[in-house]
This record gives sequence, structure tokens and C-alpha cells, in this order.
Amino acid sequence: MPGSSFGHTFRIGTFGESHGSAVGVIIDGCPPGLELSAEDIQPELDRRRPGQSTVTTARQEPDSAEILSGVFEGLTTGTPICIAVFNRDARSRDYSAIKDIFRPGHADYTYHAKYGVRDYRGGGRASARETVGRVAAGAVAKKLLAREGIETLGYTCQVGDVVMPQTQGVTHEQVESNAVRCPDPQTAEEMLALIHRVRKEKDSIGSAVELVAHGVPPGLGEPVFDKLKADLAKALVSVPAVTGFEYGSGFAAARMRGSEHNDAMYTSDGAVRTRTNRHGGMLGGISSGEDIVVRVALKPTASIPQPQDTVDVDAHAAIALTKGRHDPCLAPRFVPIGEAMMALVLIDHLLRWRAQCGSSGKSES
Amino acid sequence: MPGSSFGHTFRIGTFGESHGSAVGVIIDGCPPGLELSAEDIQPELDRRRPGQSTVTTARQEPDSAEILSGVFEGLTTGTPICIAVFNRDARSRDYSAIKDIFRPGHADYTYHAKYGVRDYRGGGRASARETVGRVAAGAVAKKLLAREGIETLGYTCQVGDVVMPQTQGVTHEQVESNAVRCPDPQTAEEMLALIHRVRKEKDSIGSAVELVAHGVPPGLGEPVFDKLKADLAKALVSVPAVTGFEYGSGFAAARMRGSEHNDAMYTSDGAVRTRTNRHGGMLGGISSGEDIVVRVALKPTASIPQPQDTVDVDAHAAIALTKGRHDPCLAPRFVPIGEAMMALVLIDHLLRWRAQCGSSGKSES
Amino acid sequence: MPGSSFGHTFRIGTFGESHGSAVGVIIDGCPPGLELSAEDIQPELDRRRPGQSTVTTARQEPDSAEILSGVFEGLTTGTPICIAVFNRDARSRDYSAIKDIFRPGHADYTYHAKYGVRDYRGGGRASARETVGRVAAGAVAKKLLAREGIETLGYTCQVGDVVMPQTQGVTHEQVESNAVRCPDPQTAEEMLALIHRVRKEKDSIGSAVELVAHGVPPGLGEPVFDKLKADLAKALVSVPAVTGFEYGSGFAAARMRGSEHNDAMYTSDGAVRTRTNRHGGMLGGISSGEDIVVRVALKPTASIPQPQDTVDVDAHAAIALTKGRHDPCLAPRFVPIGEAMMALVLIDHLLRWRAQCGSSGKSES
Amino acid sequence: MPGSSFGHTFRIGTFGESHGSAVGVIIDGCPPGLELSAEDIQPELDRRRPGQSTVTTARQEPDSAEILSGVFEGLTTGTPICIAVFNRDARSRDYSAIKDIFRPGHADYTYHAKYGVRDYRGGGRASARETVGRVAAGAVAKKLLAREGIETLGYTCQVGDVVMPQTQGVTHEQVESNAVRCPDPQTAEEMLALIHRVRKEKDSIGSAVELVAHGVPPGLGEPVFDKLKADLAKALVSVPAVTGFEYGSGFAAARMRGSEHNDAMYTSDGAVRTRTNRHGGMLGGISSGEDIVVRVALKPTASIPQPQDTVDVDAHAAIALTKGRHDPCLAPRFVPIGEAMMALVLIDHLLRWRAQCGSSGKSES
Repeated sequence: MPGSSFGHTFRIGTFGESHGSAVGVIIDGCPPGLELSAEDIQPELDRRRPGQSTVTTARQEPDSAEILSGVFEGLTTGTPICIAVFNRDARSRDYSAIKDIFRPGHADYTYHAKYGVRDYRGGGRASARETVGRVAAGAVAKKLLAREGIETLGYTCQVGDVVMPQTQGVTHEQVESNAVRCPDPQTAEEMLALIHRVRKEKDSIGSAVELVAHGVPPGLGEPVFDKLKADLAKALVSVPAVTGFEYGSGFAAARMRGSEHNDAMYTSDGAVRTRTNRHGGMLGGISSGEDIVVRVALKPTASIPQPQDTVDVDAHAAIALTKGRHDPCLAPRFVPIGEAMMALVLIDHLLRWRAQCGSSGKSES
Repeated sequence: MPGSSFGHTFRIGTFGESHGSAVGVIIDGCPPGLELSAEDIQPELDRRRPGQSTVTTARQEPDSAEILSGVFEGLTTGTPICIAVFNRDARSRDYSAIKDIFRPGHADYTYHAKYGVRDYRGGGRASARETVGRVAAGAVAKKLLAREGIETLGYTCQVGDVVMPQTQGVTHEQVESNAVRCPDPQTAEEMLALIHRVRKEKDSIGSAVELVAHGVPPGLGEPVFDKLKADLAKALVSVPAVTGFEYGSGFAAARMRGSEHNDAMYTSDGAVRTRTNRHGGMLGGISSGEDIVVRVALKPTASIPQPQDTVDVDAHAAIALTKGRHDPCLAPRFVPIGEAMMALVLIDHLLRWRAQCGSSGKSES
Repeated sequence: MPGSSFGHTFRIGTFGESHGSAVGVIIDGCPPGLELSAEDIQPELDRRRPGQSTVTTARQEPDSAEILSGVFEGLTTGTPICIAVFNRDARSRDYSAIKDIFRPGHADYTYHAKYGVRDYRGGGRASARETVGRVAAGAVAKKLLAREGIETLGYTCQVGDVVMPQTQGVTHEQVESNAVRCPDPQTAEEMLALIHRVRKEKDSIGSAVELVAHGVPPGLGEPVFDKLKADLAKALVSVPAVTGFEYGSGFAAARMRGSEHNDAMYTSDGAVRTRTNRHGGMLGGISSGEDIVVRVALKPTASIPQPQDTVDVDAHAAIALTKGRHDPCLAPRFVPIGEAMMALVLIDHLLRWRAQCGSSGKSES
Repeated sequence: MPGSSFGHTFRIGTFGESHGSAVGVIIDGCPPGLELSAEDIQPELDRRRPGQSTVTTARQEPDSAEILSGVFEGLTTGTPICIAVFNRDARSRDYSAIKDIFRPGHADYTYHAKYGVRDYRGGGRASARETVGRVAAGAVAKKLLAREGIETLGYTCQVGDVVMPQTQGVTHEQVESNAVRCPDPQTAEEMLALIHRVRKEKDSIGSAVELVAHGVPPGLGEPVFDKLKADLAKALVSVPAVTGFEYGSGFAAARMRGSEHNDAMYTSDGAVRTRTNRHGGMLGGISSGEDIVVRVALKPTASIPQPQDTVDVDAHAAIALTKGRHDPCLAPRFVPIGEAMMALVLIDHLLRWRAQCGSSGKSES
């Protein structure tokens, strides 16, 4: 059922299997008149794709974005924007080794249990390759947000036991300055060393990513179910391998007193501000004007080059053996995906705000 | 905008402000023929309401459920079920002290920034009293799930630094055996002692709740956005004061190796099982048949009986002073709310599964 | 399933059965800051309710609107507005005569076939009494539209063979000047005479209503499925007893040539206008700035005081005998319902327009 | 905004402009395990496309369907099915003549007023070419319905003043036996003669199509807004050029008495039936088990090879001159589109029924 679409007013729907003909996305509800071309989307896809560095897989997928609709003479028309990435060479492989096996930590068994039929090639619909559509749509969202002075920025803040010290004022350039996408150079080196060691040991390692949105005006987010925090939680937890979500003080709040947790409010140049940001930029699920800060946990890559005990489709004991190369740590490539999901939530809520609370009406626009 | 409804196929919409005429819920899509009366709903509302014990507030709100539609001769008819709890005595209080103040840690300022107008009485729509509707709907969901052998169960697993040891086989009776709703008696006593100390110190304390669903068949959850884990994240993070969500290994996964994280699969009586449950009962966002296990973090109660620095609606510095009594720890009363949200997600996905993957058609039913 | 809600951005959900505790509506997405009280809603409910005149039924239902949420100090707060009309005296009647009978022309059998259980009292959920919620929500929509200079106006244009001559510039006062709600006094008299004759003959008669929206700016309506004409069709055909919908030239277009049907365009004071309005104010499903003109057909009232051949719940032949009094013609009371549905579609599309195509963003508002 | 998707549980979203890179559709929620290939879709696209006969346009568009996702080894997988038709040769034309002109009867002006920017090539998104996606999705819906014994069938019942006599038991073969898709051979000849005369006179002519669904079980359709009749109205009126919708007695009901309109009920082989079908197979918006019968009116083709008065984008008077060839009558090519829309509504409601009212649960399936 309609589980492949997301957003209320700026709405996306993704399609495609890992090794099928194409993966892509339809964006419905994009404001008209935005300058847009494949060149706006390609850099984000390049950040997402494998084979970027020694800590990501060596597979080469060109991931070339094509805009099939919704853009005319370089401008969005307000109608659905379909963006597709065609898989050029995927069909010829031999899948006999995994065809009948349920790999541990993968969705093989659960898809089988749900549908009875599944595309076993490279994980099919459950593959992280599905995120191509999210990242493409996120690139459009980011461009719309930039017009409002809003930026989303993510970075690797933890790999195994290596945790980045708390940092403010991280820039995109710092994030992109190293392969692990950690803005702190010292920590980045330690993370890289750990990832290389893990890979050598034919293993993988868990990680965490922090995401920040700057410039979000106060007032975005709906009461009750479509709170900004709730939509961010759904958006990010829906990404493969994400096992946890927190914002502001997050799980650390469970140990805190109210007197230390509440952020004192004050006024600065007429704006209401808070002296600290344990609320992560959201109160009652509505943006406060402070930076929105969230964190997600990523499990270690399920595909590891070791034999693992499992069962096959006939419920017999079997051994799963991963072929091909896989990222030993998911955080670096998650960064652009997380930014995209955050941007998609924010643009949706910005348009929703405009509908309900914007200036009076068409006649006045 | 439509932020007050939740669910795709079993859909609820809540209404009401803390001190308005009524709070309640409409359930649309409930299967017909379910025996239902106010007596099915009342016990859950009683678990949620304040004044149950020395660790919850002493306010007395009767919270008496009335079914206004959708039930006839004791059976659900398949049409919308409206359940309302009328506020009997709320109107006469004096709100002049908080009318113009933005309380720290509350949604006063963000509602003001969003709407320009807000119901300042007791937090208005942002009050935890809104969860009355969720709990009432959750009682209906629980009854439907029980017919399928599915149960949702929550318990307090952390208060401040007091953390419950890992426990299996928790029962509803154990949970309800003490005021803090922690199934481990020893831990419960420590939690109660801490809460009493915190209250005496005019402060509040953070906490965490674990939620388990037993008996969920494999195959529930949609690919991509409406993954079971994603809808659980949204459902739970949408509750006031929730600052984090994790399932299975959660944030601990960030420190783990793939070789220790992947749950080995085996067969038992023809069923595919896993030897461990670090995947929290969900792979690829679809249920695996193992227990679904999630955890949420709750911030310390924002309302504390201490003066706090803040600003007023004219952006002048002000002091916020909480009147009335408030729970110093939110976990005990969150337990029934969390169970309700989990049940609402599960029944929705069960019906969605039935629509897409159920038996062939009407003619065969 | 969620069939009781309508609208995308200004969204309503109705609840309640004809003889249950209450009927009502929740409005989600109403802009904040609108002055609103029960007095704004009551006049529309009074136009809808039975017992207004000799051509409507003599039953007395007070239909007193109560606003349960979403309004504070006389202003909408932006949160869900719940409006309920409680049924004061409905429970004591004797329904044994219709309990087991499927009345011809009614939904008794189809509800039974769908749900297995049904509220047989007065038609239950299928009763026209359900439209109380629509009309209440429509009153709010009308008030919002009035701020934009938009008005919806309906009138009876046909009763049996009595057809109103084409008329322009109809006013609300003309419509309300007679019991049949036909703005042409001569036609109104003929209609009234026909209705009285039909009633005397223990029969009922079909009718048609025309609805016009003035002041709709060009640009409302979405491409493809959510065309303005499509949403109006759904909104109006969803009302009980409506058997047809057309706009502009409607079914007469089937007989016309393109050269006579196309409306020539010209410019007047800088505005693009058409010399004729066979397009009914919508081209490509998007408003053109001309009056939006639609028409609906209403079947004759199914409840007639004559014995009719039918079957009972055990599939045995039976005779249906209607008790109580029923309107012999549905158009007069449909007028406020039709206006409400039209207003609900227009405000929804106005807000949707604002979200996608409104001024740039929050920062500029 | 999300106006390009349709359906609740079997949900489709279309994309593409008339002369863009591709037109197509995503289907989300299709049951898994259905045998499906491009060969199932192509015949319906061939029925829809221009150039089939002397009464449709001579343009040659190959309209070759490609399935990009959601099908594996010949079976649907339950994940989104993306079907695209790529435009091979559309880019090279000269559009200077219509670039700045608002054609009468077209959506040129309303798109311009809404979005400020528009794809003027061949009508862009407003072109009937958008229906390629609907017809492709409809082919899948038809295949699913066939498994349940449900068939949708349409035919031209009116062209100008030529009206087909009432007919029962129409077959697909009869419909496809002539170019105008009217099952009555005598009427078909008259229609063809009229269309040829109109074309010769450089004009176009209106028409009407009747659609019938056989084998629909009782109980499909939701109360209140998502009535089966309401969703059919929306689905069909959303198609370009449709100006009216009616079901059963339709607009003729406005002239009828209740005593002649109500369909008497009786029992046949245990099934509840009606002796006549003025209710068009739907009572209270829910299917009764009788044939579902609806009719739509189609305006005469707006593109006619005559000069027409209009305005340009600068609001100056201008002359619109249509180039290329266009169908002088829309009914023949509407038939497969109408069948597709009807099938999409029915499969959606069948799945919705199964979710809410189907057999008890997953465990029993």
C-alpha cells in the first residue's frame, strides 16, 4: 500500500529496485518558477553514491540524473517533477548464491513473509539504492530552502567508540574535507583508522550522524501528530539501517533535572531566543527559531565478508556469504541522505505554514 | 493544517484543548462488529489520568469517556467512532499569571509565533491532556489486536540514573504493581525514592520507557517511508516530552560490529526465527515475527515550582512561576500513552497488510 | 475506512448517526485569527434543518451548534475545530417496523451487505442528517471566503418538469424569499404547487439545484486529479440523493459544435475574460476568474407514504411502509448543503494555491 | 500541490507533459504476485492513442509502455510499479505560433494565471496525453478485477444529436467493432457520418460515453465522502473535456416521481436484487450488486481548424489558429480512458473493503 510516498504538501514518491531498470522519484507540489536542471541534482547524487573513497564501496554506479517532467525552459512548472537514474549494466550478474537465502540483518526474510515474491537482486526495493530518489528530491528541497535562508547540514559524529567532541559552527566545506565526513580533522582521522581496521578484519562498524538546520523561522510544525520532531523522526528512521533518532538533549534528557534542562528565554534584537538549545530548536513540536539539531544511530553494515548462519526459503539451515564490496561504515554516505530527508520535511512544513498562516489570500499576493 | 490526524487505514483525529469544553477523538476505519462500550475505554483513561498516586499530580480530572457515534447495540458499525471526554469545571480559573508569559520548555512561544493567537489555559492544544484522545483510540486498537493475539506492553525502564536491568517476560500485572510502572520491584523502589527526592527539591527528572509488542506476525510494515519502524518513531515522538526513539539495539548499535550485531537466523517448528533480537523485531522496516521492542526518552517535566527566567509576549524579560502540581517524572503516565500509540500503528499496518496481501477478494471472504 | 473526511489542506471529518448521541464535524487546518462563534454557524444549520416550511418535513430538530474546541476568546486558534449538534430526544422511538426491512431507494441493504451490522434508526450514518457536519464546516469556509470576496450561492432550478428560466445576478435574498429557494418568483410558485400536489398524492418528486461561486480568482485547482471541477464533482455527488453533476455547458455540450462551445477571450481592464461562460469558470480544471457554475440532479425522496415491495434481512419478501413525514422534494434543503460543499472545495483550493504559488516565504509575510 | 495522485489504497500518481521526455505513472499498493508484463498494458494504450482510424487524429505516437520497477520475473512484487512511455520525437517542432497565445477552450490561460510559467508545447501537462498514465494503470487494475469477476466496459452513447437507443448486454467485441466505439451498428454509422461531416466543416462535436461495471459485489464504497458514486464522479470528471457525470437515472431523476424511481427489491437464489436499476448499482454510495452504470458528457474538441478570437500573454487581442490534426469527437478515444478510471476506483474500493471488512486477520489468511 501507499508506503512509498512522503510529505503532505511538498510530496515525493520513490520507485525502483536496486538492480531493476531505474530508480527515481516524483515530486508533486514543487512551487513553480524555480530554476532547476540535472546539474542541481547531480552533486548530491555524487555525494551519495558508492565508490567515492577508500571507506566506501568500490562499485561504480554512474547515477546520472535525468529530469523527465515538470521542468520547462529551465524552470519548474509546478507540475510533477519525475527524476530517474537508469541502471545501465545491472542485469547480467549471477544471483544464484543469494536467490534462495535469507541474509541475516537484511530484509530478505521479511519481504518474503510479506509478499511471497521478492526481487532478490541486490536487496531489491529494500536496498539503500532506493535513497537515490530521496537525495534527488532533497536537492530540489535544498534549493527552495536556500531561497528562504535555510540550510541543512549533516556530519558523522560517531564511528564505533570514536565520538566527535561537541562542535558549533560546522561548515559544509569542513564536512566534505575528508572521506568520513566528520568536520573535526583529528576525530576524522581516528574514524578513518578504525574503519580501515574493521574492513581488514572483514567486519563492519556502527556509527551516528548529527544533522543541523540553520535559519528555520519560528512557527514550522503542526500540533499533535505532524509535529516537526515527529516528521523528522519518521523521515530519518525510514532510511535503511537507522536504529535510533533523538533531537536536542535526546536520550541524555532521561538523566537530567528540569531545572537544568529547561532553556532560559531572553530577547535579542526583538527576537525571542533561548540561552541554551537543549530543546533542539523545537518546542511542542514547532520550530523556535534556534538551530534544529537531531542525531541518528546507524547499525553496522549487515553485509560482511564472513560466513553467517541463516536459513533458506525452504526453512533449511544455510550459510550466507556476502559477495561484492560494501561500505564497512554507513555514516559517510548517510550524510547527504540525512540532509535530504531533513530538507524534505522542512520545505513541506514551510509550505504548510504558508497555506494556513501565510498572508491573507490570493488577491493580496 | 491537517496535523491532528494519524494513520492511513485505521485513522484517528484528535481535538480539544486542555481547558476547553472537551477533548476527544474520531476513529475512522474501525472494522465493524467489534463489541465496544465506554467500559472498554475507561480503564486506559484511568491509567493515563493524573492523581493516581503520590508520584503523579494530585489534580482530579474524572476523564469520563462518552461514545458519541459509531457504536450501535454494543457493536462497532464501521462508521466513525467519536469518543469525547468533557471538561466539567475548567473554565473558572484565573490565568492572568501565565496569559502573557512564555514558559521555558513549553510550547507557549512557538504557538504564539506560529498562530498569533493561542489558548494559554493549561497549555491549550499543546497540553498532555490532548493524549486523552490517543489513549481512548488506543483502547479500541488494543481490543482489535487482542483478537489477533497481539499485545502491546510498556514500562518505565529509566528514571534519571536509575536504570532497570534487562528483563524478559514482563507482564501487565508486574507493570501495574507499583506507582512508577517499573516491572522490577527493586528498581521501582529506587525510582520512587528518586522521584520523591526530586519533588521535594522542587525539581523534575527525565526518564525512559520501553515498549514491547508480542505476537506480531511477520510481514507488517511498508517498504520505504511507511516502514513499521518509521511509523512507530513518528507515533511516539509525536507525544509531548518525547526527545528520542530507538528500537532493538538502538543507539548502542553505533558502537557495535556487524559480526556481533547481525541476528543469526534458524528454523523452529517451521517458523523462521532469530537467535537474538538486536533487530527489535523489524528488518527493512517490516516485522520479522520476533517481539517488537522500542524505547523512548522523556525529558524532565518542564513545569517546575521554581522561578525561571523567560520573556513575555511583549518580548520583555519576565519570571515564569508554575502554579498547581505537576508530575515530577513523566514515565509512569506515559506508559499507557506509549502502548496506545504502538497499538494504533500496529492495527493500521495490520489492516494495510490485509488490503494488499490478504486473501484474494470479497467473493472469497 | 477513512471515507468520512474531505479536503487536503482545509480538511473536515464528520461523525454521527441520525438518531445517535450527536452529529458533528472536526475542521483541521482552519487559518488562525478568524472571528468565530456558534452564531456564525447556526443560521446555516437553520437553513438546512427540517420543519422550515410547508414543503419541508414537520419534524422538529433544534440542531443547536456547539463549538467544542479550536476557538478561544472568539478567535480560531488554528487547531481542530470540533462542532457538535447533540440529539436531544431521539432514543425513545419504536423502530421495530424498519429494523429488519431493507427500504427501496435507501442504503439499508448496502450497509447491511458491507458491514453486517447497521444502525437502522432513521437511516443511521446514511441519513441526510449527516450533512449537519458539512453545513457547519461550510459556514466556517464561507466566512473565510468572504474575506477574499468569494461567495457561493445556490438555488432550486428544477422541480419535476418545472424548470427555471436562465437567470443572471441571483441574490441570496431572492433565494431565501420563498420556501422552495427558487429566485424566480413565478417559477417558485409553480414549483410549490407541484410539490403540494405530489405530497397530496403520497409521492415525491425529483429536482435540480444550480450553484454559483462569485469572485473566485483565476488559478485555483490542481492539474490532473484534483482539478477544481473534479473536486466539486466529488463534493456534490457525495451528498445523499445526488444523481448527477455538470458544470458550464454540462450535458448540453454533447450536442454542441466546438465553434459554438469555445468561449472567445478578450481583455477588460487588464483582466483576461471570456465573452460567454460555457466553460463554467474552469478550464483544464483550474478557475478562469469567471463565475463558477455547476448543477446537480437530485432524485425524488426515497421515503414515500406508500407501501413498496421489498425484502427483509432474511431475504424474504416484505412490504416497506414509511412512517413519519419526509420532504417530498429535496432541492430546497439541499441548497445550503450544496453551498457548503462548494465553499469547502474553494477554501481548500485557495489554501493549496497559497502553499504552492503564494508569496515566497515565511520571512516575507 | 499533490494533485497528480489518485486513490487511497491502490494509489496512482501520473507525471509528464505532452511533448516532454516521457509520460507515465507510478502505481503504489498493487497486490503482489500478479502476472504482469508490458504486453498487458500495450493493448489499452493502443486503444487510447491517436491515429487509430479516420475519426481519430492522424498523428503517429507509438506509445510504447516500459515497466521500470515493481515487476520481477513476470510478477508484481507489491512495490511501486513505474510505467513510462517515452516521447521519441517531440522536441523539434516549432511552437512560436502558440507560445504566447491563450487558446479558447484550453487551459493555456488558467495555467498561466496559476503558475506564471507553463509548458506551452501541445498543452503541456493539460494535454490529453497525460491520460497515458491513467490508461496504463487502468490496465493493471482491470487485470486485478478480472480475477474477482469484475469487468468495466464503456461505449459511445451519443455524438451530437445522434443518441444510441438503450441497450443491455453490450460486449467488448461490439464496442471494438467500429471506429466510433458504439455497440449499436446502425447508430455507429450515423455517428461516423456526423463526425465526418463535422470534420469537413472544420469543426468538432460533443459526445457522451456510458460506462458499465459488471460483477461488482455488494458492499464497495465508503459512507459519506468516499462514496463509490463520489469517487467515480471525481475520477471521471478529472479527465480532460468531461463536463458532466451522472449515474443510474442521473439528470432524468429530476423529472421523476419517487413511486416510479425507487427500485423494488426481491430475492433471487438467496441474493437481494432490484427489479429495475435506476439506482445505477449504488445505494447510499455503496454498491448493491447490480451493474454500476454511469454516463459522462464530453465537450466538443476545443482545437478546431478555424481562426478564433482570443488574447495573448500580454493581454492583447489575438487570433488562435490550430495547427495539426485533432479528433473532431472525443468519445471514441475516451472509452478506454473512462474504463481505466472506473477500474481504478473499483480496485481501490475493493482493497479498502478488504482492509476493513475482510476476514479477521493475518493469522487466518
